[in-house]
Amino acid sequence: MPAPWITYRPEIKVLDCTLRDGGLVNDHHFDDPFVRALYQTCVEAGIDYMEVGYKASKKIFARDKFGAWKFCDEDDLRRVFGENQTPLKLAAMVDAGKADYKTDILPKDKSILDMIRVAFYATQVSEAVDMINDAYQKGYEVSANLMAVSRNTEVEIEQVLELIAQTPASVIVVVDSFGSLYTEQIEMLVKKYLQYAKPTGKEVGIHSHNNLQLAFANTIEAIIHGANRLDASMGGLGRGAGNCPMELLIGFLRNPKFRIRPIWAFVQDYIEPLRRQIEWGPYAQYMMTGMLNQHPRSAIAARSDGQMRDRYVDFYDKITAED
Amino acid sequence: MPAPWITYRPEIKVLDCTLRDGGLVNDHHFDDPFVRALYQTCVEAGIDYMEVGYKASKKIFARDKFGAWKFCDEDDLRRVFGENQTPLKLAAMVDAGKADYKTDILPKDKSILDMIRVAFYATQVSEAVDMINDAYQKGYEVSANLMAVSRNTEVEIEQVLELIAQTPASVIVVVDSFGSLYTEQIEMLVKKYLQYAKPTGKEVGIHSHNNLQLAFANTIEAIIHGANRLDASMGGLGRGAGNCPMELLIGFLRNPKFRIRPIWAFVQDYIEPLRRQIEWGPYAQYMMTGMLNQHPRSAIAARSDGQMRDRYVDFYDKITAED
Repeated sequence: MPAPWITYRPEIKVLDCTLRDGGLVNDHHFDDPFVRALYQTCVEAGIDYMEVGYKASKKIFARDKFGAWKFCDEDDLRRVFGENQTPLKLAAMVDAGKADYKTDILPKDKSILDMIRVAFYATQVSEAVDMINDAYQKGYEVSANLMAVSRNTEVEIEQVLELIAQTPASVIVVVDSFGSLYTEQIEMLVKKYLQYAKPTGKEVGIHSHNNLQLAFANTIEAIIHGANRLDASMGGLGRGAGNCPMELLIGFLRNPKFRIRPIWAFVQDYIEPLRRQIEWGPYAQYMMTGMLNQHPRSAIAARSDGQMRDRYVDFYDKITAED
Repeated sequence: MPAPWITYRPEIKVLDCTLRDGGLVNDHHFDDPFVRALYQTCVEAGIDYMEVGYKASKKIFARDKFGAWKFCDEDDLRRVFGENQTPLKLAAMVDAGKADYKTDILPKDKSILDMIRVAFYATQVSEAVDMINDAYQKGYEVSANLMAVSRNTEVEIEQVLELIAQTPASVIVVVDSFGSLYTEQIEMLVKKYLQYAKPTGKEVGIHSHNNLQLAFANTIEAIIHGANRLDASMGGLGRGAGNCPMELLIGFLRNPKFRIRPIWAFVQDYIEPLRRQIEWGPYAQYMMTGMLNQHPRSAIAARSDGQMRDRYVDFYDKITAED
């Protein structure tokens, strides 16, 4: 019997989504020392991609209400990353319906970004196809991220995959936005995505949330069934229950190009201090919305309401009554 | 394709190990209101077994240094549980090398305990066989719990299973004491245990620790491969990183006999207040000992040392240098 837990698959690449998903917790208000230290950590740890934030519409989101990483202007990118003379690739996410992507995403030769990740709901797939084509034609690697897939039926998912398979996106990501998927569902989805991705030379990725303490486990499950693109964040920083913790993922991957010690240093020096200011993690309310396959917004509201925060049963009664 | 995440296997039984494994965090100093509320919760939630503590030797462990649940004297059991006129079965653990089991375990007709769980390391298997026979002859259901299996080789494990298979134990439990096992290792172990258990009519169980945030995931994995006896604890309370959280497990099991609302009430009213006094959970140092397949004792020491607690990199350097 083989022991795959001590070997590795060289095709596997890791993306750090600390700034992007974590930005949803603090409206992207990360200061430059934090961002620079994270960048340095990703480089030293051998991480492949760092997703620095969103290219969000300034018509929809007020520039002065959010930190720079909501918009990822080229000036901000270069102020912190310079010309990025490292093997680490930089990525930004662009949301269907929330971006002026035609103007805000510059041609690749004018940007230090390497990858554009297009995030969309199933009903937005037609716009997503346009966005993918736009980013590809401008010269970027492109990833297609169908969000909240736990709310879609199999035929909807197959319809999306059929359309995305025809685009020049090089990655299709299984995105468990609500942190509600169990092992066997991850297996089914990864296999389904691979059916469409493999024949067109695309890779499949996984982006998990930790509502059920399954973010790391589901990432392993996705790897077992063939996913080669993995999202994780330092200390699991991310919206609500957070994401797959990078320290656990890098501790599991056996490719010697990855190094865990710089990650522990970043968690010690930057994540733990941040934890005293903002909250994320698999708290009770996030478990409940995960179990019910609900958006975490009600849980986020309860956790930030001093009256509701510790009243788990009231919250449970409320969200099950409304379900 | 089937959707097993919405169906259930009626053979599955759940054991609450809150008091027993949690007792390792606070030297079993639980007060009676806590224990009574836990008992009531288990009954209301439809849990099958409640493991109330150890039958530990009073020659080895001073009676006045530990709470009552280190010893589980019959007087203490009856003071709190009366005659236990409920479907909930009561269990106690007995450690090889640390118990006067011949005298301290009463004949079944003199005790309200239903099950004895014999915990042992591989090298203690001969004593474990004697202990299993003793408890069975006294009239109890017996479980055989080979601890720290992540430190044993396949041939050692097979030797243990061959000997245990011949005993009257009705359950053999895969015990991940160090919280270091990954998905595929759980699969391999459960399948191996079943090879020995099934032909002799025994069930296989799972007892996980949460060092790598895999306690719940590994419990699911064990279920998928045929384990029917599941350990979990309220809020994951247990030594070091803790165990599989009962609230997540019951949220996953679809047998309508289980009810989650009483569990949320117990977590709200008893577990969260306890969290302000004692600590457990998948903190950085526990992740590190889990990754290295080490006993959590160095991590427990570091977490309780004000000087070391936040110095993750120093701890990492220390335990990797010593490894």
